[in-house]
Amino acid sequence: MPGSLGYAVERMSILETDYKTLTAAAGRDLKGPEVARALRVLIEKGIKFLAESCDTVKLRTQVPNKVYVCFSAKGKPDKTTRPVNAKLLDLNLTGDEIEDLCTAKLARRPLPRRAQILYTGAMSYCCTTDLLKKDDKKTPGTFFECFVGHLVAATFGVNPTNSIEVLNLDLRANLPTDFIFHLGDGKNKIHLPVKTSTRERVVQVWAHQRVLDGVFGVNRFKGVLTAIAETNMVRRDMSVVEVCLPDQWTLYQMFIAQMHRVYYLDPPVKYLSLGETYPYIRVKSFSAFFDEAETLANASPLA
Amino acid sequence: MPGSLGYAVERMSILETDYKTLTAAAGRDLKGPEVARALRVLIEKGIKFLAESCDTVKLRTQVPNKVYVCFSAKGKPDKTTRPVNAKLLDLNLTGDEIEDLCTAKLARRPLPRRAQILYTGAMSYCCTTDLLKKDDKKTPGTFFECFVGHLVAATFGVNPTNSIEVLNLDLRANLPTDFIFHLGDGKNKIHLPVKTSTRERVVQVWAHQRVLDGVFGVNRFKGVLTAIAETNMVRRDMSVVEVCLPDQWTLYQMFIAQMHRVYYLDPPVKYLSLGETYPYIRVKSFSAFFDEAETLANASPLA
Repeated sequence: MPGSLGYAVERMSILETDYKTLTAAAGRDLKGPEVARALRVLIEKGIKFLAESCDTVKLRTQVPNKVYVCFSAKGKPDKTTRPVNAKLLDLNLTGDEIEDLCTAKLARRPLPRRAQILYTGAMSYCCTTDLLKKDDKKTPGTFFECFVGHLVAATFGVNPTNSIEVLNLDLRANLPTDFIFHLGDGKNKIHLPVKTSTRERVVQVWAHQRVLDGVFGVNRFKGVLTAIAETNMVRRDMSVVEVCLPDQWTLYQMFIAQMHRVYYLDPPVKYLSLGETYPYIRVKSFSAFFDEAETLANASPLA
Repeated sequence: MPGSLGYAVERMSILETDYKTLTAAAGRDLKGPEVARALRVLIEKGIKFLAESCDTVKLRTQVPNKVYVCFSAKGKPDKTTRPVNAKLLDLNLTGDEIEDLCTAKLARRPLPRRAQILYTGAMSYCCTTDLLKKDDKKTPGTFFECFVGHLVAATFGVNPTNSIEVLNLDLRANLPTDFIFHLGDGKNKIHLPVKTSTRERVVQVWAHQRVLDGVFGVNRFKGVLTAIAETNMVRRDMSVVEVCLPDQWTLYQMFIAQMHRVYYLDPPVKYLSLGETYPYIRVKSFSAFFDEAETLANASPLA
């Protein structure tokens, strides 16, 4: 069975060696060219696997203006990927587009295309892992952290840290954090939690922002949450819903801390309007980051 | 194979029917006698299964003054339970002791024995589920919620709610919460999160306390976290560690909100001393609750 052998070889290559190359490079220099190359290899192999070795399955959804599909490996219909927004996925990205993505040069692409390039880049690896590995929730999460961390670090030209020292009278502690970017004198510091989806765990993001506000002063760190989507697939009828808790987010923004931005690759419909009314949680497509990175870095703390 | 059949029948009985009886009764009257009876059935069947159908495996540990074991079903050594504190587990509880446990009359038992009765009651179901069901993390968590919720509700004579309405200028939202006890005029309200273990998710507890403080006023709700243990088993060398983050807890207590008590059935060594120095997180054995319930209900808000 040559098909089966090819499948096994590809599996090893995409999911073990190349993934380890990425995480090792990310540990050395997250913003650097080694990470860009490792991302490109994983993204191109993921796209190739989905395009050539998988079938597409249409899913039902009530979410307005969205169409969701999932993938299954040819001949193995029982196992499917997470749901995929069909309007944001394009398995025909050009080599130049993938290169611009991995080197964080997306600002020169038009916004709608930029959103497709970002979404396809992130989901190609996640979906490939869904099919080729068993119950692997960890590596898609780590891949997405490297992906977003690299894009933000390359855009700012600064690598992040993952912990921060607290010195406070007789207290001395090392607080593990999501990515923290120190952008230099006169610029903001950025607190960047990265999650594939948030669900009820999202309160952690506001709580960690609160600790940073408390230890270092309110508005010293701009909180910027980045996620892929909040989709959930109901297997019973192969339908997709967006799991959104806008009332709870409102209470967190009012009473725990103030997140400055929330970026999604596939923004949930119910969250997009949270920026229009008090307490103003500005939820946007991550494609917008590349236009407003400068503003995020330089904005006056209260802007 | 009659042994195998008995195993299958017992499995159905402990893990499906009796569990459903418990959760249905808990939905109707958490503090009531139906829940007490359902708990007693599950605990007695769990103890019987562990005592008669399982082998004990000794585990290594560096935790001072603690001895850990785990269980495996006879003839099936590959699958083991979560680690169990051997000094707190006693599979020879008397019928009277189990009755006092399930009817929340533990205050008349001496403290060290009370701790064993509580621990054995909670762990018997959890360990049985570890062996008889596959990857079931949900039902031990729900069982433990019913167990602690029932004991606290029966002690206070009041059933809890699981959500609270927020009315605030033009905002009206229903906030889902852990157990909330409204103890009546002139008494405190209790916010009781219940988790088998907390790990890095523990920040949620402080964050939810912060929302309650923000919406309803600081010190209006006494936060009382209750958990079993923070043990983690390393399968490679069959050893047990306690996963503790005392520096992070300190920052949460300083900068997010103030938890009034943290109870454990098997209190982690590193947390017990947190009550002695600022910011005073009072961590105790849950056995102490039955002596201080009155104080928790009546204490002046700032005590």
